[in-house]
Amino acid sequence: MGVVLSTSILFTDHYQLTMAQLYLRFGLAERRARFDHTFRSYPDYGTHQAGYAVVAGLAPLLDWMGNARFSGEVIDALRSIEGSAGSQVFDDRFLAWLTAQEGFSALELFAVPEGRVVHAGAPITMVEGPLALAQILETPLLNRINFETLIATKASRVSEAAAGGDVLEFGLRRAHGSGANGATRASMIGGASGSSNVGESLDLGFTSKGTHAHSMVQVFMATMGGELESFRAYADVYPDDCLLLVDTIDTLESGVPNAITVFEELRRKGHRPVGIRLDSGDLAHLAVRSARLLNDAGFEEPTIVLSSQLDEVNIWQIRNQIAIEAPRYGVDPDHLLARLTYGVGSRMATSEGASSLDGVYKVVAVKDESGDWEPAIKISDSPAKIVDPGIKQVWRVYDERRTATADLIALTDEDVEHRPLTLHHPKLPDVSRTLDADHISRMEPLLERVADMDIPDHPRELIEQARARRLRDLDDLDPGVRRLVNPHTYHVSLSDGVSEMKHRLAAHSVPTSRGPAALQDS
Amino acid sequence: MGVVLSTSILFTDHYQLTMAQLYLRFGLAERRARFDHTFRSYPDYGTHQAGYAVVAGLAPLLDWMGNARFSGEVIDALRSIEGSAGSQVFDDRFLAWLTAQEGFSALELFAVPEGRVVHAGAPITMVEGPLALAQILETPLLNRINFETLIATKASRVSEAAAGGDVLEFGLRRAHGSGANGATRASMIGGASGSSNVGESLDLGFTSKGTHAHSMVQVFMATMGGELESFRAYADVYPDDCLLLVDTIDTLESGVPNAITVFEELRRKGHRPVGIRLDSGDLAHLAVRSARLLNDAGFEEPTIVLSSQLDEVNIWQIRNQIAIEAPRYGVDPDHLLARLTYGVGSRMATSEGASSLDGVYKVVAVKDESGDWEPAIKISDSPAKIVDPGIKQVWRVYDERRTATADLIALTDEDVEHRPLTLHHPKLPDVSRTLDADHISRMEPLLERVADMDIPDHPRELIEQARARRLRDLDDLDPGVRRLVNPHTYHVSLSDGVSEMKHRLAAHSVPTSRGPAALQDS
Repeated sequence: MGVVLSTSILFTDHYQLTMAQLYLRFGLAERRARFDHTFRSYPDYGTHQAGYAVVAGLAPLLDWMGNARFSGEVIDALRSIEGSAGSQVFDDRFLAWLTAQEGFSALELFAVPEGRVVHAGAPITMVEGPLALAQILETPLLNRINFETLIATKASRVSEAAAGGDVLEFGLRRAHGSGANGATRASMIGGASGSSNVGESLDLGFTSKGTHAHSMVQVFMATMGGELESFRAYADVYPDDCLLLVDTIDTLESGVPNAITVFEELRRKGHRPVGIRLDSGDLAHLAVRSARLLNDAGFEEPTIVLSSQLDEVNIWQIRNQIAIEAPRYGVDPDHLLARLTYGVGSRMATSEGASSLDGVYKVVAVKDESGDWEPAIKISDSPAKIVDPGIKQVWRVYDERRTATADLIALTDEDVEHRPLTLHHPKLPDVSRTLDADHISRMEPLLERVADMDIPDHPRELIEQARARRLRDLDDLDPGVRRLVNPHTYHVSLSDGVSEMKHRLAAHSVPTSRGPAALQDS
Repeated sequence: MGVVLSTSILFTDHYQLTMAQLYLRFGLAERRARFDHTFRSYPDYGTHQAGYAVVAGLAPLLDWMGNARFSGEVIDALRSIEGSAGSQVFDDRFLAWLTAQEGFSALELFAVPEGRVVHAGAPITMVEGPLALAQILETPLLNRINFETLIATKASRVSEAAAGGDVLEFGLRRAHGSGANGATRASMIGGASGSSNVGESLDLGFTSKGTHAHSMVQVFMATMGGELESFRAYADVYPDDCLLLVDTIDTLESGVPNAITVFEELRRKGHRPVGIRLDSGDLAHLAVRSARLLNDAGFEEPTIVLSSQLDEVNIWQIRNQIAIEAPRYGVDPDHLLARLTYGVGSRMATSEGASSLDGVYKVVAVKDESGDWEPAIKISDSPAKIVDPGIKQVWRVYDERRTATADLIALTDEDVEHRPLTLHHPKLPDVSRTLDADHISRMEPLLERVADMDIPDHPRELIEQARARRLRDLDDLDPGVRRLVNPHTYHVSLSDGVSEMKHRLAAHSVPTSRGPAALQDS
């Protein structure tokens, strides 16, 4: 097999390399360029859509970049690639240029710190540096940050639906190959308190979570007894971590009564049983009925873990059903809701319903020969695809209630302190609103120079920081934007400077689109 | 950071290890057990559903298993895990037992070879060996084979919709982290002819594909000219691989005319232009209009690559629209359809609409102390979740037209040669059909002992073999089962032996579900 290239610096798209070589040929490879990474729309899960996203994926990207090099093996592999005429696609001059790079170390990154709430249309990452390198970085940067942001966003919504209940990430068996590890990490940033994924949990400084599967009960049934014997065995080995899966045979007729028998035995020995897990059937109804059985036996504290096809909508529905159904069985709904834990699997780890984030990476400026930035733009039939040009920063504008009211995309050399502040609609040039000083309590730049970030060495500390940022930002967000279904649209606006530059460039580009004659004349 | 555990043998769920330790404590860890891996339903994409799946992921699983070991670092990490009472969860005896294992080498695998068409409800992988090891393997096995089967299935449907047109996998930027590499591989098995993913393509022995992005045109617009100059530059560097992206400014007014100008220059120099790519707008309409412009300029051969949010339904619709619209612009639809290539991104690489395969891994038999197999079953409120017990093989039954008519799940020691052959409905005990000798042309066992498989060392040869299997199996499949929307249901049936065993065990299990009193009496 030889060396594995798929995780090397060649974890990129072919056209990044063909363009990089072209830039080298035309003296542009080292021209300083700026790229913005922006997602165009919030994940749309079909029957519901996110109104915000939670950014994640930066630290794993930086780890990968730190090791990515144009090593001898990489260069040899590139040399072996042949074009359709049978000749070497990447010539020796280009390969020598790549070899001379120390990976991506010449690039400068700007990013919104992990865990922060971010919005569609406002850049979340920016890259500046030699054009050819910034181009090659496009794919791995998008891959990592699009994906982890997608999952952190899903996890955040799941956590919001859980309303304070613990969310455990259980998706490893159906997540996308080794991408499962990124899903675990992003879920932890988005609000999951733990994961069943042993290796990734340990790498992140956490303890993995889990107890037993149906197979344990089945094995006992086939060998040395039945469900009760399997529960006794589990309690014997894990007396202080005894959480029993009760639906292998029949939840209410067999599983819960057997669990109670074993819990009583544990209690007599001075141990506190941890709880039960329900993994099939009508989870709300079974939670109520199980709670009643547990309560009647004096087990009011053990947790009830729900799993099986959970996502934010199912959790929301289960909680609503419990609120209605619990009193009918003599169970206090608030008490029951407070003891629930949610094991969320493939729907969170794969962001079911919206399995990708539409983040794009677009060149927004290139330095000319005299070192001045020339803004770049892409015109398109679809207004949503017109790029916001120039060297920019995103400012979060907080209103008089200290609620985030808009993200303002401004040029970095632009004064955003003046009042009133004009916020231009990102697509419609004639639409804007103004905020006077009374309506702005604070403005905060969202992107930070990555080299200046204080990223903790210990990954757990990093996750904890990211979780704290998310909670802070959610607290500052209009509750309407956080709605599960049909959320309010958060405003992402352009500054005077970006708006003017965008419309000037768009107008300027029109003549070049009239065809080859016009172009050749120009 | 220390050692990376997330890709080690600890790429598994926590409960596999807690169960393994329990089995060791109760003398069951080395008891020989058999597990079946079965997916319950075909991917359902919302508006359409697959009627078959294409299995993939075995070779990467075997590669991973070959390297997975309970190394000193792994054991140290496990020793560090504490339970809620603060004590070590995994005791020294268990850690010593793990250390004594040579990874998973004591396990025996049986699998349907990659690329074959497989069906919901019929096992695609089986594992036999020491119970504790087989349990730990559950998660990594499911992760890899569920995921690659999901993507190979999606790719197969995309390829069927493309009706012979090349499909290129372009999903790296939005796929799930490093799972992107598995998506590339599975897409290649499922019918993609190439991928933009440089590293994984090279690892698989293929050449990655791609030309340039909008950014190249934008960079030229910002620095040294416009779209035409950027196209000229591209043709200059890649005269024999000149494929131009024509929608940066305006496809019909600027992009295609500029491409034709450059193609004419190439033609005068003796080169054959490769084609154009359309990446936005109404792709069917733009393909027709672009073809007309290219044809009028004498470029009837260059390919037209379509990309942007493609999936099987979009491709199917585009082809239908072209069939209607092309004649209105004086373009021969068959000629145009034959020159199309499809660049398919995130929708294939993430299986949008159905982002996970519901494959499960269930214990079906455990050897008793005297070495006889005891079948195992899981009862459930949901009949679809009742496990088919016993040591089994899946037979594909071909009818008199040599079309696959059913997959028959039989016990390995059962005679399936007798005629007529009874096929039992998998859920309804009273429903069956019989096939007499006239209606069976052939029966073929689907699962092979992995140790006996002739898996090529060269990954490209392996992919080519898998592709050939897929084409052969599709050819043997009823066209109704291959339908894009609302496919026929392929029959997966139980043999006399499995059916009898299942219903006997299910009936036998019922008394144990009456509660603890009954259980304690038994």
